[in-house]
Amino acid sequence: MTKLSTEPYKGVRDFYPEDMAIQKHIFEVWQKVAESYGYEEYSASILEPAEMYSAKTNEEHASEQTYTFTDRGERQVTLRPEMTPTVARMIAGKKRDLAFPVRWYSIPNVFRYERPQRGRLREHWQLNADIFGSEAVTADVEVISMAYDIMRAFGAQPGDFIVRLNSRKIWNTLTEQLALSAEQEHALARLIDKKAKITALEYTDEEETILGDKTKLFRADMEMLAKDAVPERLIGSDGVKELAQIRALLTNAGIPVVYDPTLMRGFTYYTGPVFEIFDTDPKNPRALFGGGRYDRLLELFSSDKIPAVGFGMGDVTIRDFLETHNLLPEQTSTTDLMLCLVDEKGRDEAPELARHLRAGGVRVAVYEGTKKLGDQISVASKKSIPFIVCIGEKEVAEGSYVLKELATGNEMTLDMAGITAFFRTR
Amino acid sequence: MTKLSTEPYKGVRDFYPEDMAIQKHIFEVWQKVAESYGYEEYSASILEPAEMYSAKTNEEHASEQTYTFTDRGERQVTLRPEMTPTVARMIAGKKRDLAFPVRWYSIPNVFRYERPQRGRLREHWQLNADIFGSEAVTADVEVISMAYDIMRAFGAQPGDFIVRLNSRKIWNTLTEQLALSAEQEHALARLIDKKAKITALEYTDEEETILGDKTKLFRADMEMLAKDAVPERLIGSDGVKELAQIRALLTNAGIPVVYDPTLMRGFTYYTGPVFEIFDTDPKNPRALFGGGRYDRLLELFSSDKIPAVGFGMGDVTIRDFLETHNLLPEQTSTTDLMLCLVDEKGRDEAPELARHLRAGGVRVAVYEGTKKLGDQISVASKKSIPFIVCIGEKEVAEGSYVLKELATGNEMTLDMAGITAFFRTR
Repeated sequence: MTKLSTEPYKGVRDFYPEDMAIQKHIFEVWQKVAESYGYEEYSASILEPAEMYSAKTNEEHASEQTYTFTDRGERQVTLRPEMTPTVARMIAGKKRDLAFPVRWYSIPNVFRYERPQRGRLREHWQLNADIFGSEAVTADVEVISMAYDIMRAFGAQPGDFIVRLNSRKIWNTLTEQLALSAEQEHALARLIDKKAKITALEYTDEEETILGDKTKLFRADMEMLAKDAVPERLIGSDGVKELAQIRALLTNAGIPVVYDPTLMRGFTYYTGPVFEIFDTDPKNPRALFGGGRYDRLLELFSSDKIPAVGFGMGDVTIRDFLETHNLLPEQTSTTDLMLCLVDEKGRDEAPELARHLRAGGVRVAVYEGTKKLGDQISVASKKSIPFIVCIGEKEVAEGSYVLKELATGNEMTLDMAGITAFFRTR
Repeated sequence: MTKLSTEPYKGVRDFYPEDMAIQKHIFEVWQKVAESYGYEEYSASILEPAEMYSAKTNEEHASEQTYTFTDRGERQVTLRPEMTPTVARMIAGKKRDLAFPVRWYSIPNVFRYERPQRGRLREHWQLNADIFGSEAVTADVEVISMAYDIMRAFGAQPGDFIVRLNSRKIWNTLTEQLALSAEQEHALARLIDKKAKITALEYTDEEETILGDKTKLFRADMEMLAKDAVPERLIGSDGVKELAQIRALLTNAGIPVVYDPTLMRGFTYYTGPVFEIFDTDPKNPRALFGGGRYDRLLELFSSDKIPAVGFGMGDVTIRDFLETHNLLPEQTSTTDLMLCLVDEKGRDEAPELARHLRAGGVRVAVYEGTKKLGDQISVASKKSIPFIVCIGEKEVAEGSYVLKELATGNEMTLDMAGITAFFRTR
């Protein structure tokens, strides 16, 4: 018979226990920091009505990049490409019952239909943390602080990464003041977004094509902004004032930030400050993740205005970062102890001993199979189970067991209560 | 502008924080008990090649019941309807590297395209726990024991549920001895599976239609089995011997089991003992979940024989059980403390205090907004945050804070270290 392939579907990952351990570590750090800021966990299905990702929500996703199919009831269904529309839907759906501001986090998997490449799989998991119902800059500062604390909680040093900051309001004011058409503004934003991927000449050529006789004005203002000076056109504008406040608050909190007027972040729904965490590694400088304010997205679902700010942080990128910076945790087994079977009496009694140890909180695997004792111990070792107890007629009769640590060879002779006490204090 | 619906896609659930708390409780109990048995966690994508669910694997899923679609690369993709084929694929894929027997668990979401009804949504989560590489009855006993321990860990009393047991080997031997054709055997199994849903008359009529002149023999044997006696045809058969051993071992371990010769369990891949956990509630007696041995499924992927036994346990059914039996945990906040803002000084200093408290392990939300103090406290209360500290000029100057428990009104005056110490020992 022809065998089926053991490969997963293209562009997605299998998580064998050693990969799962890393994944769980990442999720645990996310959860811990998010909860330390008072964020509550929520979740939802990966299936969403396709209309949620239509052009008016987000042109990036409305295109070829989503998994969308027609269900048997002729409904268009999408595997969510991101969590923000879902959380916006949920918040809008219970706005009458929620005590605003609401702080929520989730760790959803999201899907993109694209060619698999490093760090951009078709499915990845993503921390999403958002605060709803506050227009104040303190909310922006809070989510950026949380992003910073997460990096630190993973073990990253302050020099390993920086926070880059910009504001869509500054951008909007600038392009309005220059009287750019919506098409010009849009084309320009896209051009800036891809700046790193094209040559300087290609960039300036296209800039001129878009802007025509406004090229010079635009360039002058952007150059000033890049030097952290405020062009006349923008003095006293909301965006500039807001960003100055945010920078002051972050600096006070000991969080280094860099203003970058070319920072765009893909999503069209951003309305105010946007930020990204940027890996400063000279060998691979790049954006790790980011977020921003999206005060109007909830209007898709609700006639009430519900301002919002938050960020998303992907598991693939962060895992890559942790590997590069040697910050992955050591692999440890989630099993404390294996019971190895010396003889038939040991085999008969092991499940009972295991039951008692489990009741005492010890995580116990009983050797299962017919191998000789030495080979049983090899199995424990190969599974990285740190301790073994060999159980046979003698141990059963005496109620006394030799607890052996495989890494060191250290042995302790203990009764059952002694074993549970040992693992409880460990 | 027309607003988008805030309803989730039909047949799936949103998990608002209060639902998520219950979900997390269920997952934590699953993880804890599975790890107490030495099972390692794995995971995989929900996307699988559709061919994995073709008729030869499982006729239940090959039909109308899966979400299957064609991707943009013309590949047929299925949202996994169950985890067992996936784990079989993964085990087969790394069989050379794994130290058998392998004990694995996962908590995947799985999808079925069916009419939504109580306890049968289109998406649910499911604990899957399996042991690979052992043909011994001790492996069957282990997974049944784990299923039993999970029910107990949820707080179910021994009388609340029973373990029902049967063996596909007994069934196979019986139908072979009666020289039933594959079609007859199959039709009969399906008939027995739906026995509870049809009238006794419908049942006997269809039984006769299928069996013809063998009806009497079959009925006599099934009646003997129902009385826990062994029909002559089956004396000394493997299935009977094996099941007697399993029953003896479970009884020794204090786990009550009932033999039920009509227990089938849906999946066609089962090859040996099958079991289910049955809710004995007289108002709603029903199977909660189950599992069994499937020694041949891995042959789909591998020419090596890799025997396997395990079970799956769904979140919807168990949540329903916990609700019915009043076993849901009390809702508690994952936030320890809210800082309420008395004045501008308090507003300025709260983030700094929060930062220090978080570093000490306290989960702190800072009030965000412009409400008056009394309304800030109502927000904390509405979010079930158990403690508050009101911070203003006085508190900042003195470095002394009043920690108030909202439920009791109790107050303690503490410095920052005192607050962290309080929550550390709590």
